[in-house]
Amino acid sequence: MTIILHIDSSPRTAHSGSRMLSREFVDAYVGAFPDSVVHYRDLAAQPPTLVDEQWITANFTPSDLRTTAMQSVLGESDVLIDELLAANLVVIGVPMHNFGVGTLLKCYIDQVVRAGRTFKFTPDGPRGLVAGKRLVVITTRGSDYSGPLAALDFQEPYLRTMFTFLGITDVSFISCNGMDSGNRDGALEAARQTITALVADIGNISLTSHPESAVGG
Amino acid sequence: MTIILHIDSSPRTAHSGSRMLSREFVDAYVGAFPDSVVHYRDLAAQPPTLVDEQWITANFTPSDLRTTAMQSVLGESDVLIDELLAANLVVIGVPMHNFGVGTLLKCYIDQVVRAGRTFKFTPDGPRGLVAGKRLVVITTRGSDYSGPLAALDFQEPYLRTMFTFLGITDVSFISCNGMDSGNRDGALEAARQTITALVADIGNISLTSHPESAVGG
Repeated sequence: MTIILHIDSSPRTAHSGSRMLSREFVDAYVGAFPDSVVHYRDLAAQPPTLVDEQWITANFTPSDLRTTAMQSVLGESDVLIDELLAANLVVIGVPMHNFGVGTLLKCYIDQVVRAGRTFKFTPDGPRGLVAGKRLVVITTRGSDYSGPLAALDFQEPYLRTMFTFLGITDVSFISCNGMDSGNRDGALEAARQTITALVADIGNISLTSHPESAVGG
Repeated sequence: MTIILHIDSSPRTAHSGSRMLSREFVDAYVGAFPDSVVHYRDLAAQPPTLVDEQWITANFTPSDLRTTAMQSVLGESDVLIDELLAANLVVIGVPMHNFGVGTLLKCYIDQVVRAGRTFKFTPDGPRGLVAGKRLVVITTRGSDYSGPLAALDFQEPYLRTMFTFLGITDVSFISCNGMDSGNRDGALEAARQTITALVADIGNISLTSHPESAVGG
């Protein structure tokens, strides 16, 4: 049984390309592997709380020394992390806004990146604890950042770095470029073809001996 | 008279290195050029509203067709943009969080990047409208991102790209590396020495014929 965590992060609803494509990906995956279970999280409907000083203080207090109030401040983060750790396929839809990741996803990242829960410090440096996952990120961008504008793309390289840091090394991107460049339908159609191929490539995670599955998580 | 817009964006207050250094920079500048005027904006005390679907709809509606409700949705953005355009020296203190800009500053950026107000579309591509400014960004980072970890720095390159897009091309960074690496005092002291030199280098903007000042803004 594949446990899918499906995250949407566009502030848009009806007109969101990333929502449309992430939904199509999850539908295609579940269609192919009907024993999958889907947990859905809509970051626009329930925006993650901005990390504030109380959160930082609680997070940097050793867990056995945290007051009840501190535990409560980190409660939302704990829920999001538990949900992430429970999944073995994570599907994220995210628009590029102002050259970077949509801010709702950045708010989510701030809530789930926590020493002792999703990474740990070791003598050899930090080590991610979110192992044994397959991650699919579906990005939408107004312009085409696959060519000369690649240096302005702070969305995909950032997400690769951030999730690799957490231990998720098996990451696939479906990047839907040029959504505002007059050929939105063509851009969506190109992404759709990638979806079909990627679902087949991933296969039924519960049946495959995925190299990372032995690591933990 | 130099009009300074001083922005702090750390969620921390008492223990924030970026707040300490941005304050020291502004104090040093005003000490050197007492005819300066300072407008202060604390993004933690007043977090910019997350851009939502209503905001996006209002922003993409031509300004002469916006309803009163749409104008109201963009009211916060208009205030922030007016304040930015009125300044000729912008000083931003910002921590690196999770390899990127602190999220409060990303929320601010989402509010001030607007076609027709801070950039415009031209036949030759987008063009920034926030010209004639000097920008000083004071960044703090837990580790040292000036050497082998530079590829993980999505803070400084992102901010350079974003502000250049808006037309602010005269940007100086004071990057305070290694704040959590056991020598916080040394890191702060190194940054302080840069502050003194930079204040002297910028000089009294109201008296110098800054190359960009002729462009507008």
